[in-house]
Amino acid sequence: MKNFLLTIAYIGTRYHGYQVQKNLITVAGTFQDALEDLLGVRADITGCSRTDSGVHANGYCLNFRTDMKISPQSLIMALNVRLPEDISVVDCREVPIDFHARYSCVRKEYLYLFLNSHFPNPFYHNRAMFFPHPMDEKLLDRAAKEFTGTHDFKAFCASGCTLKNTTRTIFESGVTRQGDLVTFRICGDGFLYNMVRIIAGTLIEVSKGRFTPENVKEMILSRDRTKTGMTAPPHGLYLNRVFYE
Amino acid sequence: MKNFLLTIAYIGTRYHGYQVQKNLITVAGTFQDALEDLLGVRADITGCSRTDSGVHANGYCLNFRTDMKISPQSLIMALNVRLPEDISVVDCREVPIDFHARYSCVRKEYLYLFLNSHFPNPFYHNRAMFFPHPMDEKLLDRAAKEFTGTHDFKAFCASGCTLKNTTRTIFESGVTRQGDLVTFRICGDGFLYNMVRIIAGTLIEVSKGRFTPENVKEMILSRDRTKTGMTAPPHGLYLNRVFYE
Repeated sequence: MKNFLLTIAYIGTRYHGYQVQKNLITVAGTFQDALEDLLGVRADITGCSRTDSGVHANGYCLNFRTDMKISPQSLIMALNVRLPEDISVVDCREVPIDFHARYSCVRKEYLYLFLNSHFPNPFYHNRAMFFPHPMDEKLLDRAAKEFTGTHDFKAFCASGCTLKNTTRTIFESGVTRQGDLVTFRICGDGFLYNMVRIIAGTLIEVSKGRFTPENVKEMILSRDRTKTGMTAPPHGLYLNRVFYE
Repeated sequence: MKNFLLTIAYIGTRYHGYQVQKNLITVAGTFQDALEDLLGVRADITGCSRTDSGVHANGYCLNFRTDMKISPQSLIMALNVRLPEDISVVDCREVPIDFHARYSCVRKEYLYLFLNSHFPNPFYHNRAMFFPHPMDEKLLDRAAKEFTGTHDFKAFCASGCTLKNTTRTIFESGVTRQGDLVTFRICGDGFLYNMVRIIAGTLIEVSKGRFTPENVKEMILSRDRTKTGMTAPPHGLYLNRVFYE
């Protein structure tokens, strides 16, 4: 029995999120269909996390076990010809049999993309949040940097969150601009439900002048979801990289 | 009567090219529908050039005349709410009444994008030519630079070309890489039918080692379409910018 770790990229637009749901098209269900077509049996796959409907991935990781004798390179090719055009396997390696895509993960990186232009650009439709008002990436970068460190991020978790431990460590957080594209990048040991989208929504409020970078500290300390920004739309969010030991 | 010059961006995938064709969805036809909905009458629009089915544009230019009293900014907004998501107006200005998007054009710039990675990337599906074999951008850049200057480009025009004058001036031509994305950029006073795609196809042959950069000169001198590369697929091509006096 072999355990394979695969990295996949997908455009989330067509999917009801990553996680399998009955009677809905999901990334995991679509991947399982392709894998079943190859292996002849439906395999259990373990994903590194859930992603919401409309959220994209540059490097989502999952693993599965199989008795099939196949090399990682052949597995990539065999799956890519069976997958639709909005999902691709981009990497594959054999890992120890007890490797688990979720539990073995030590760090994840997300991107949130803003298209900051006067008028919409069709090439970013459904791939970045369109924001036609001024955006000062240096100010946003200062606000983003306030999230680094180990904090209780309860104020940045979807309301109704029942998690006991809402403390997470953010290793890096910053904002950069390339032309009209403003990218918020955040890397941490884990993220609460909707956390990156709520932080992105908070950055939008900073752009609008409703919050200053200095307010972020108080927001975190408040542990109160009503003190933070809106949940930014899913189509700007990308699970960019997943790190293992 | 006012004459408006508009710049539009579009994803060509869904369209049977720019030019209106009976019973087929085209960029021009779709734009005319939106404009008719706004003006109440079907206006003649003049495009800067034709683009083939599947070819994209970052900055296609067109003009039309109207008696409607509307500012360029309002015109952009009013058209964008009426256009589908794969076409956007990105600029608009009033121009002299005799301005003509095709005849007044002095220079055009095209991009041809190659996705040079081992495995397909869903975000570049239909937006770049996937080329999974080695590509030396420095070698390609040397080949691309051989096209600059004033030459008879008959060898780089679709066979069956009946144009009398196949001489064009190329101002700039080069290849750069950003990660997996290899971009061929070419700027000239005009282009023959399929010229950029045949040059891109010739660069592919250079990548495969079938031609050297030094062969380009002989190819141009041959004036023989059979001596040059294949016509690269349309979905890697972008009309990037159009220049006026």
